[in-house]
Amino acid sequence: MIRVGIVGATGMVGQRYITLLEGHPWFTVTCVAASAQSAGVSYAESVKGRWHMSEPIPKNVGKLKVVDAMNIDEIARSCDFVFSAVEMPDKEKVKQLEESLAAAGLPVISSGSAHRWTEDVPMLLPEINSDHTKMIDAQRKKRGWKKGFIVVKPNCSIQSFLTPIYALQQAGYEVDRLSVVTMQAISGAGYPGVPSLDMVDNIVPFIGGEEEKTETEPLKILSEIKKEKFVLTNNLTITAACNRVPVSDGHTACVSISFKKKKPTKEQIISIWKSFSSVPQKLKLPMAPKQAIIYLEEDNRPQPKKDRGSEHGMAISVGRLRECNLLDFKFVGLSHNTIRGAAGGGILNAELLVKQGYIK
Amino acid sequence: MIRVGIVGATGMVGQRYITLLEGHPWFTVTCVAASAQSAGVSYAESVKGRWHMSEPIPKNVGKLKVVDAMNIDEIARSCDFVFSAVEMPDKEKVKQLEESLAAAGLPVISSGSAHRWTEDVPMLLPEINSDHTKMIDAQRKKRGWKKGFIVVKPNCSIQSFLTPIYALQQAGYEVDRLSVVTMQAISGAGYPGVPSLDMVDNIVPFIGGEEEKTETEPLKILSEIKKEKFVLTNNLTITAACNRVPVSDGHTACVSISFKKKKPTKEQIISIWKSFSSVPQKLKLPMAPKQAIIYLEEDNRPQPKKDRGSEHGMAISVGRLRECNLLDFKFVGLSHNTIRGAAGGGILNAELLVKQGYIK
Amino acid sequence: MIRVGIVGATGMVGQRYITLLEGHPWFTVTCVAASAQSAGVSYAESVKGRWHMSEPIPKNVGKLKVVDAMNIDEIARSCDFVFSAVEMPDKEKVKQLEESLAAAGLPVISSGSAHRWTEDVPMLLPEINSDHTKMIDAQRKKRGWKKGFIVVKPNCSIQSFLTPIYALQQAGYEVDRLSVVTMQAISGAGYPGVPSLDMVDNIVPFIGGEEEKTETEPLKILSEIKKEKFVLTNNLTITAACNRVPVSDGHTACVSISFKKKKPTKEQIISIWKSFSSVPQKLKLPMAPKQAIIYLEEDNRPQPKKDRGSEHGMAISVGRLRECNLLDFKFVGLSHNTIRGAAGGGILNAELLVKQGYIK
Amino acid sequence: MIRVGIVGATGMVGQRYITLLEGHPWFTVTCVAASAQSAGVSYAESVKGRWHMSEPIPKNVGKLKVVDAMNIDEIARSCDFVFSAVEMPDKEKVKQLEESLAAAGLPVISSGSAHRWTEDVPMLLPEINSDHTKMIDAQRKKRGWKKGFIVVKPNCSIQSFLTPIYALQQAGYEVDRLSVVTMQAISGAGYPGVPSLDMVDNIVPFIGGEEEKTETEPLKILSEIKKEKFVLTNNLTITAACNRVPVSDGHTACVSISFKKKKPTKEQIISIWKSFSSVPQKLKLPMAPKQAIIYLEEDNRPQPKKDRGSEHGMAISVGRLRECNLLDFKFVGLSHNTIRGAAGGGILNAELLVKQGYIK
Repeated sequence: MIRVGIVGATGMVGQRYITLLEGHPWFTVTCVAASAQSAGVSYAESVKGRWHMSEPIPKNVGKLKVVDAMNIDEIARSCDFVFSAVEMPDKEKVKQLEESLAAAGLPVISSGSAHRWTEDVPMLLPEINSDHTKMIDAQRKKRGWKKGFIVVKPNCSIQSFLTPIYALQQAGYEVDRLSVVTMQAISGAGYPGVPSLDMVDNIVPFIGGEEEKTETEPLKILSEIKKEKFVLTNNLTITAACNRVPVSDGHTACVSISFKKKKPTKEQIISIWKSFSSVPQKLKLPMAPKQAIIYLEEDNRPQPKKDRGSEHGMAISVGRLRECNLLDFKFVGLSHNTIRGAAGGGILNAELLVKQGYIK
Repeated sequence: MIRVGIVGATGMVGQRYITLLEGHPWFTVTCVAASAQSAGVSYAESVKGRWHMSEPIPKNVGKLKVVDAMNIDEIARSCDFVFSAVEMPDKEKVKQLEESLAAAGLPVISSGSAHRWTEDVPMLLPEINSDHTKMIDAQRKKRGWKKGFIVVKPNCSIQSFLTPIYALQQAGYEVDRLSVVTMQAISGAGYPGVPSLDMVDNIVPFIGGEEEKTETEPLKILSEIKKEKFVLTNNLTITAACNRVPVSDGHTACVSISFKKKKPTKEQIISIWKSFSSVPQKLKLPMAPKQAIIYLEEDNRPQPKKDRGSEHGMAISVGRLRECNLLDFKFVGLSHNTIRGAAGGGILNAELLVKQGYIK
Repeated sequence: MIRVGIVGATGMVGQRYITLLEGHPWFTVTCVAASAQSAGVSYAESVKGRWHMSEPIPKNVGKLKVVDAMNIDEIARSCDFVFSAVEMPDKEKVKQLEESLAAAGLPVISSGSAHRWTEDVPMLLPEINSDHTKMIDAQRKKRGWKKGFIVVKPNCSIQSFLTPIYALQQAGYEVDRLSVVTMQAISGAGYPGVPSLDMVDNIVPFIGGEEEKTETEPLKILSEIKKEKFVLTNNLTITAACNRVPVSDGHTACVSISFKKKKPTKEQIISIWKSFSSVPQKLKLPMAPKQAIIYLEEDNRPQPKKDRGSEHGMAISVGRLRECNLLDFKFVGLSHNTIRGAAGGGILNAELLVKQGYIK
Repeated sequence: MIRVGIVGATGMVGQRYITLLEGHPWFTVTCVAASAQSAGVSYAESVKGRWHMSEPIPKNVGKLKVVDAMNIDEIARSCDFVFSAVEMPDKEKVKQLEESLAAAGLPVISSGSAHRWTEDVPMLLPEINSDHTKMIDAQRKKRGWKKGFIVVKPNCSIQSFLTPIYALQQAGYEVDRLSVVTMQAISGAGYPGVPSLDMVDNIVPFIGGEEEKTETEPLKILSEIKKEKFVLTNNLTITAACNRVPVSDGHTACVSISFKKKKPTKEQIISIWKSFSSVPQKLKLPMAPKQAIIYLEEDNRPQPKKDRGSEHGMAISVGRLRECNLLDFKFVGLSHNTIRGAAGGGILNAELLVKQGYIK
């Protein structure tokens, strides 16, 4: 078993990692790290009264003593790689922490945004850009790291539509314009996060920074690596409006797209989505959804409550494909923001890196 | 005082009419009509256990005996004009009922969709097309009606954005493309309407017929009357995606627009909206919002809970004006669907028709 | 494998039965019956657009042709026993249908209320009165049934507190007074059930018939069988107030109790609950929770979202045990209303009856 | 006009005071005080982005400069009395602040809990104990204050049931036991207050300190003053369980009561409630509800969304009076927690004190 550390283990995403990793065939949690004030007691003790998962704390993890996240040496001794789910507001400090962990020899799989635009750090969505991991070699060389490295996963808001778009690109239909309006779940803001006074009988048409991430991160994910640099060759233009809605888990996206040249039929698009299968599916990664994209025929689907759990929260559900008066087609996409969009996506990244030999 | 009848008085919109008309300076409710099974008892009796307003039933209306809506003669005797808020599923029957009422000499102000595309029936949004009432003359002539006529109001989903768009058109900036995603309140579906199992921890990305209405009704509202016909001269292309969200009242719209030729600056748009004033404001109609369009500077506004009540539910609240990567600008619009979008809009139509001499 | 029929298969409880029975070690669904208008097509077809579970329809069940529930012969041919989850408003008709099925040789495990007070029908809660099944012999004798019989499960509102009370009784502490206020989930009302206009920013302090069931059903469950009759020997007095709250699944109960004579300490009560184990646990029934009663130490537990899923929805979660100024102790109880309180409870009854030899 | 200061003006209760006082016939807001970090700017500036009322900020108040709440002299100069709505966690500091304000000559009407059990401070609920204000004389004498004094209002959780109980006591029916389970709105916790992750598809069966307040505060309110002391002569025993539910405003209470000796009939109770009128009604205080207790005949009322606004949020709504198996009667009570239960109740106290000559 490969020994896993979770840095930022007491937060919402950290808790989701711990829940999802229970019973994992390759990974076992051997280190939980958090801020200094949580450190020194058992993990069970540290999250008492603020455990937010519906599953109980796995017994073996509950007994682990929480390590101070600044104690790099102790973390490096007690695991083979780490998931970083640090929630510090100061992004510079997160960057430094993740770099220190990598410098200490640890592969760092981050779900945070700190290093997303660092020029030698790949932003991985394994169904799309599993080859971007080769940037790790350049990263190690440049920074003088032997074993450690940093990879990140993209923002949760783009998962509901980017894989379906990529599936079409792969099939030869280049998407050039994309308009997306998201309706995002409250778990995306962590705990305590969004006040209930804003979510009872209300929606909030704004999430700080989310539209910018939604409009730009796909460009890096879909980029090509040339001469050890990510080159944003893709001609995709994205506009996004992001809303917070009173849903516990599951981000929904209303999407319109247009194609640059060749335009598929509705039937062709559905067929492409239904038959889409990529590297995680081919490698049979444990966390990979068997069916990466699920197309629902009912008029009123996907819905967060009914569809977020598909394929253990790792599938992208789409539906309502129809013609658009302005662009070419409209559809609705949905994904589980704390599984596919956070911890589950991080685990899938780690599994890919194991198969590729970057994590041993 | 002008005597008012409400046909469909026991439904959600009918109840809202009754609440809003209490204390009206010109109108007094003298007739309440509903389906045969509600008829024959007092209005208070007929809505017992299904009165959904937070205000109590006005005493004078509570005592009125409910008339069978098919009893045209009795309705015609007891009022000077009617608001039609009939909720029958069979649109043909609604059409016939409204025509019978008009034939009996009653002006009919309908909030239903049955006659929206009838070629001689104006679809009124008084801030935009108060001159469309002149079609009433053609309608009377064609149908041989002396006193009666039919006008309708448009669907609630378009109110959150159409007046702001019109304000820009009026100022000389022609909008040619409009992409809108709505997040609509449950009161729009009446009672019992949307099951709570669909609205607790969920949204539904579909409302039957709503996207079609949103995409087409603005064209008739913005049309010109030529030779007694509505001519859809406007070059506006609209695409819409409509969602149901767990909000009691207030439809929110995420809107992107592009301009055909001349493009205003952000500051110009806000200035146009803030200074917009139209016929209802100039005529000082009792139901008219003093400020027709309210622009909110805060990042996270408008919100249904905070803004639906502005100007007694008759204002359009807008915010978050910003550049769009795809079209020219994006913004968020909001209006109260059962006030501005239904009963309040109907009353404003009636007030306009009084001032214009069509209702006496 | 024992062949199972589900009568009322298209409703909410029927769907939950089908989901819970997937992969059951003893039972396989071979017959799905519903009203005449659903009959004749595949089960998947019959629930299209109204499948409310988050799990997909099990493939083998989706292919079954839906039988008309009135076609007793066909049902009797295609299964060994049935779960009755019929939702007809006319209780007399439900009674007759369940009797016809039993007369045709089928054991009938009902989750409905029609036969709960029929004098020869046991109301089973296996942790409490597994011996009440012996009434089946009297029932068969009286009615001349050879193989068939009827048993029922009690109302969902009492599950959150009755097993904890029984555990105390068993330990020698007789509870004589019980005051309970429930906050019940919307799934208890089926689909469409409670309108969302009643559940957004609201609660409803009334559920028709629920308080009466809550106050009386425990008496039959806790009764003794003497001379082939249920004798309500128990001196328990119950008062109940039942509320509907915007929670999808999970009924919560605020309970106060007093003891007739001997009064345990707080520590003793918690210890009794934690160590409680009864017939389903001893028989290791597949659906039985390993831990029947879970006591939570946190101040703010149990909560529906966090605790309804415990032990696959079959555990009773309790917490907040504290002294009561009026009676002796107060606590909060919680159970999953459509699993423990409906389909899961029904399956547990069936498993018990298999072990006891009544179902073969 | 009497000049009013609001200390703690930027919080939820402070905002409600400002909204409710707009257009008040006797009072005009001339001073708004808050913590040092809010001080120095205009009130409109200080609440930018955190104004939670649906009404806009009254213009005259928006322009007032926010005073540091520790600047007692400036507050004392700029108003004739203050409403204290301070939300500091340290109750000792609140006590000192309120005492300093009183020492500076200001009558202090507090909605906080700091001074509720101070032995010379009356806890006023004007319909019940308007005569408790005479303790002000003793308070002034003891503390050497000439003009200033402190009165408090009780906790919001008891308003839904205490006036109905008092009405029965007044009519000669002594209530001796009271069991109450509350379902309380989120606005009671202020902003940000309860996280939305706890209130979407969930309830929380615990509110810190609330059960203790509910069980003890009625005793002081119903007490007699003897020799300048509050003597808790009342034999009322109360047990309470308090729950947080996803409702924006309006606390609901499920109540059971028993009578010591004489027991009224159901009809008598309803008649007593309907005809109840007390000092605020007799004095025609501007904030007083005309109908202090509203009895609703419908089975499913009162409900927060429909009834919290009755009599401008100042009425107590009751319903569902029925026999109780354990005590004598059960009913449901409801009141608006931030109007009747906080700012509105404070204003009513101030109005009473004006009529009694304590505020000039």
